[in-house]
Amino acid sequence: MKIFALPGNTVLARGISRHLDAELGIFTVHRFPDGESYVRLLCEVKEQQTVIVCTLFQPDDKILPLYYLTKLLKDSGAKSVTLIAPYLAYMRQDKVFNPGEAVTSNYFAALLSSFVDRLITIDPHLHRHGSMSELYAIPCKAIHAAPLVSDWIRQNVVNPIIIGPDSESEQWVSKVAAAAESPFLVLEKVRHSDHEVEVSKPAVAAYHGRTPVLVDDIISTAHTMIETVGHLHVSGMVAPVCIGVHPVFAGNAYDDLVVAGAAQVISCNTIQHPSNRIDVAGLLATAISE
Amino acid sequence: MKIFALPGNTVLARGISRHLDAELGIFTVHRFPDGESYVRLLCEVKEQQTVIVCTLFQPDDKILPLYYLTKLLKDSGAKSVTLIAPYLAYMRQDKVFNPGEAVTSNYFAALLSSFVDRLITIDPHLHRHGSMSELYAIPCKAIHAAPLVSDWIRQNVVNPIIIGPDSESEQWVSKVAAAAESPFLVLEKVRHSDHEVEVSKPAVAAYHGRTPVLVDDIISTAHTMIETVGHLHVSGMVAPVCIGVHPVFAGNAYDDLVVAGAAQVISCNTIQHPSNRIDVAGLLATAISE
Repeated sequence: MKIFALPGNTVLARGISRHLDAELGIFTVHRFPDGESYVRLLCEVKEQQTVIVCTLFQPDDKILPLYYLTKLLKDSGAKSVTLIAPYLAYMRQDKVFNPGEAVTSNYFAALLSSFVDRLITIDPHLHRHGSMSELYAIPCKAIHAAPLVSDWIRQNVVNPIIIGPDSESEQWVSKVAAAAESPFLVLEKVRHSDHEVEVSKPAVAAYHGRTPVLVDDIISTAHTMIETVGHLHVSGMVAPVCIGVHPVFAGNAYDDLVVAGAAQVISCNTIQHPSNRIDVAGLLATAISE
Repeated sequence: MKIFALPGNTVLARGISRHLDAELGIFTVHRFPDGESYVRLLCEVKEQQTVIVCTLFQPDDKILPLYYLTKLLKDSGAKSVTLIAPYLAYMRQDKVFNPGEAVTSNYFAALLSSFVDRLITIDPHLHRHGSMSELYAIPCKAIHAAPLVSDWIRQNVVNPIIIGPDSESEQWVSKVAAAAESPFLVLEKVRHSDHEVEVSKPAVAAYHGRTPVLVDDIISTAHTMIETVGHLHVSGMVAPVCIGVHPVFAGNAYDDLVVAGAAQVISCNTIQHPSNRIDVAGLLATAISE
């Protein structure tokens, strides 16, 4: 087996390769001044299983290099190409909310399924779909970072109160809380547009003295967390710890969250980011070898 | 028939629609803060021929919006989707130059052919392939801007001497020159890397008093033209006019070419750019209706 890291995935791919005692694949990927991508394979893959690690945040300009590398591995004799996309894109537009909308969840899944053999991802944003197989035509494995998040909280936060962003997340938040041996509560959220989110004040009166731990699967604009950090401050709680599985952090979201008063911002390394504290390499290695 | 302009293609699409007396399709395309694209169709396309205008310079982040719009048009009942890519990407890596290289010309063609019904482009960089059908599995039409370039030279330059960048371009340059009623010569070029090009000094001794007109199909880094502008200056020629069919202009190439001493920099509107003076809308309209 050989593991190929597209740009931005080297640290995680190295971790996975150590867990599996597998070699890293040698190749170059390069963008020409005119914006076209170049890919060159510099190792043998004939009859081998190959794995590409390519997290898919800011996905649009990552697709062609990923597609080219996959085709090249196949044409060079690889037995199979598994894509590890620790963060999987295009999971949110999973139905027609307004007439005429492209259901990009379906289209993106069809595209990936047309060239990759197998997909492994972490906590995909599955809301209206029960499983990945409703979207993807290839074998998929969705693994869960919740146990790692719980472990981190247990080891690093004394007396936590875990706070989830909305009722949709209740099931996930309750699992994180149970394994972290913590109480939890969830907020109510009304989304007005990409940029406007209104969120209920957390009912933390009963939890004074505890450290609030805000958890979410994706931190993108961080607006919900920033608003909640403000509410908690007004309530007289200590500065909260903010944990996201996927540190998407659009624009200045990370800095804004720190400035708003988060005591710590913590994430899984599904996307390479300074906030990475929770390592998913072991989980991914297990998923590959199963 | 309805004509859809992806961002950056509105002026050209409007020109084409006027020539054909066809409607512009109404839709929105939008990029979310996390980098994902959103597409929504706001007009009827059932049983209609549709045309998407999407020039493919800096191609990598244009592919998903193009793919989504194409799928959406099909799913909304469009009879066919023709892609007009006035500048077509990935035409240069058309063979394995070094072992292990991805032949992105083939892979890109396979991808586009998998979702678009028909392709119309202008002066694709066909060097090692005789025709588009060797690469693309869908009907393709490659139209030529040379007559428009000749017209522009005839109408705007008194006593030109046309200079082509290399021996490969000789056939094309000779046609432009013949129709512009001008003599021509071609340079010799040795490419060391993406950024390093060495070019022979133009043998202009016989053409003093004429205005040099440098022509090329693509102006990307503009290194060849910049070097030639310098050579011409040393030779005592008047400042040259520089014409490219496709104004790719990677990085600061355009400014660099102006600063180097080009009297004018002129291009076709295959890519929207301040240098656009030669309008290809009529050519494209004719190609669609044929």
